[in-house]
Amino acid sequence: MEFVIAKDELIRALARVQGIVEKRSTNPIIANVLLEVGEDGMKVAATDTEVSFVGRYACEAARPGRLTLGARQLYDIARLVPTDTVSFNLPEGSLQMEITSGKSFFKILGLSADEFPAVPEPGEEAGVLLPMASIRELIDKTLFSISSDDTRTGLNGAYVEAKELEDGTVMRFVATDGHRLSLCGRPFTGSFGEGRSLLLPKKGLAELRKLIDDGDGDWTANFGDTQASFRRGSICFSMRLLEGDFPDYEQVVPSSWQRRVMVQRDAMIAALRRVSILASEKSHPVRFAIINGGVTVTARQPETGEAHEEVEAQVEGTDLEIGFNARYFRDALAALSTDVVMLEIGDSLSPCLIKPGDGNSDELFVIMPMRLE
Amino acid sequence: MEFVIAKDELIRALARVQGIVEKRSTNPIIANVLLEVGEDGMKVAATDTEVSFVGRYACEAARPGRLTLGARQLYDIARLVPTDTVSFNLPEGSLQMEITSGKSFFKILGLSADEFPAVPEPGEEAGVLLPMASIRELIDKTLFSISSDDTRTGLNGAYVEAKELEDGTVMRFVATDGHRLSLCGRPFTGSFGEGRSLLLPKKGLAELRKLIDDGDGDWTANFGDTQASFRRGSICFSMRLLEGDFPDYEQVVPSSWQRRVMVQRDAMIAALRRVSILASEKSHPVRFAIINGGVTVTARQPETGEAHEEVEAQVEGTDLEIGFNARYFRDALAALSTDVVMLEIGDSLSPCLIKPGDGNSDELFVIMPMRLE
Repeated sequence: MEFVIAKDELIRALARVQGIVEKRSTNPIIANVLLEVGEDGMKVAATDTEVSFVGRYACEAARPGRLTLGARQLYDIARLVPTDTVSFNLPEGSLQMEITSGKSFFKILGLSADEFPAVPEPGEEAGVLLPMASIRELIDKTLFSISSDDTRTGLNGAYVEAKELEDGTVMRFVATDGHRLSLCGRPFTGSFGEGRSLLLPKKGLAELRKLIDDGDGDWTANFGDTQASFRRGSICFSMRLLEGDFPDYEQVVPSSWQRRVMVQRDAMIAALRRVSILASEKSHPVRFAIINGGVTVTARQPETGEAHEEVEAQVEGTDLEIGFNARYFRDALAALSTDVVMLEIGDSLSPCLIKPGDGNSDELFVIMPMRLE
Repeated sequence: MEFVIAKDELIRALARVQGIVEKRSTNPIIANVLLEVGEDGMKVAATDTEVSFVGRYACEAARPGRLTLGARQLYDIARLVPTDTVSFNLPEGSLQMEITSGKSFFKILGLSADEFPAVPEPGEEAGVLLPMASIRELIDKTLFSISSDDTRTGLNGAYVEAKELEDGTVMRFVATDGHRLSLCGRPFTGSFGEGRSLLLPKKGLAELRKLIDDGDGDWTANFGDTQASFRRGSICFSMRLLEGDFPDYEQVVPSSWQRRVMVQRDAMIAALRRVSILASEKSHPVRFAIINGGVTVTARQPETGEAHEEVEAQVEGTDLEIGFNARYFRDALAALSTDVVMLEIGDSLSPCLIKPGDGNSDELFVIMPMRLE
């Protein structure tokens, strides 16, 4: 294998795989990136066997070939080389890649490409078409509610289904960690499969999220029996579906309310940030006193003191005191798309529904209350 | 105590003390900041009993008083309050400070100011006058060579003495961790004390360094028997002198050489960064092959490969191979003030002297060689 590649193109390819490779595996090839050079340029692939990435990049190929090299080390070299183009040369039959840039010379031992796991490739496969804004919002509004507790596998991913609504079909992502729930639906075209549902893992969604901003354009998604793959142009990102049971989320979403509160989103976020300074650092407990005309949020640390702040609000229903984790509440408010938000609450022991002030029901958050002394 | 202070002024005062207060002490008042309000404004003080800070800030005082409050919590409040001014009120006989900003209200329990340790104050005390550039360079060129190994107290600070040179007297800072040494002398006026020397602790110098950039103007320094204090305008920073023996550093600085190398500083730093990618992460061993016309730096990882790069240089003396810790070498090069630097080397077992290319002897670095296989 012998090729010359622009430094910027090499950096771009290698930056994308740093979050995917896994250095602490018993299988050392998982820490490596696959380079495969042919007449159509260079293919770069990385996988931790759960999520994988393949991209195609421009290079001047003199002699085709393939090899895997340490992803982190190669990235460090790419960023620091002194010239605008970098030359790679792998002598026939060797596993030692020679890299030359100006007066800098590197010789790096790789592992055979034959040992590298198979990964889904970019291509023209038909599938679901997801506008860039849809896939970005589906992830941004649910990722933070996915549980990181490994003992409940079914909660370690976002539950995905297609939902027929009055004004069309949406793809719906739902996530919960048992204390809060996120739900978001966004338009798509193509067939997801009737009655179908699946679970997309947290790491996969977090890495896919990075790729969405790193370029322009809509995505094609394919949902197989064990894999979901997302393609845009010359890149393909795939993740293994999670196995596990997701709870019946529609039962968790409150369908009635006794108090409804309309409040400015940014004012509420700012008040919660300030008051939380005096909340315990473990679960950030904050008391909401809802009265006609406003919500007063209060936090107390027995050994230090207290903080409170009043936030203007339009309130329907009778007065109520209820406790929440301020961090969960801020996460949900920050994920909402509108300046005014609507809180729907039953009593002090029932979950709070948070949704856009315009009543759009394709985006909602549920937070369980906390008992306060 | 009752006063109103501008949010920006409060943030400025509290930002400066965050690195000084100590949260993990058995004495809880050490995590607090002292606020003392009188007719001339507000005094803010913080100490970990080794280093201390006192500053005076403008405020509108309605009623004088003093109290200590948690430094971190108060800083968080200052940064997040919604209004441009903040009101403080400590009811007579109470330890609970009430803080009001718009609709935000905080009540924080403090500790009595009577328990706060005495700390040196700002003022007009006569002392050594250190131009801002002098004190900044003295710290920047030596701090990184101070040892962090607590078992050798004498090396945990910078050794300070006054040195009479041909063109005037300089204050000299020297630091070493046993593997490398930094020496820097800079002009000052006033009397340091004939034959005197002392040790300034690493934390104290690191915190003083932050204050130097946080404002303009020269510093006055006083060196007492147990304390050194540094004053500028309305602030005073002091540190307890370290006890311990500093080695006879003049014996460590080579006085003769067999090879002299003149090299571009930035080119050498860049080559060392690149080649170090293939050096072991523990001690960054890199081989220097010095020949007529250039220095070739090489690193090897037995399991991965190697890197080498040639750097142009003017060389006097015969060829030599010698090993160094690339990290130490880069630190020294980065601390030098000139574009061209001079390396003076004996043989492969003797220390390397690094100094400015213009031969200025008031700034030099010594690095011990490493044995390479």
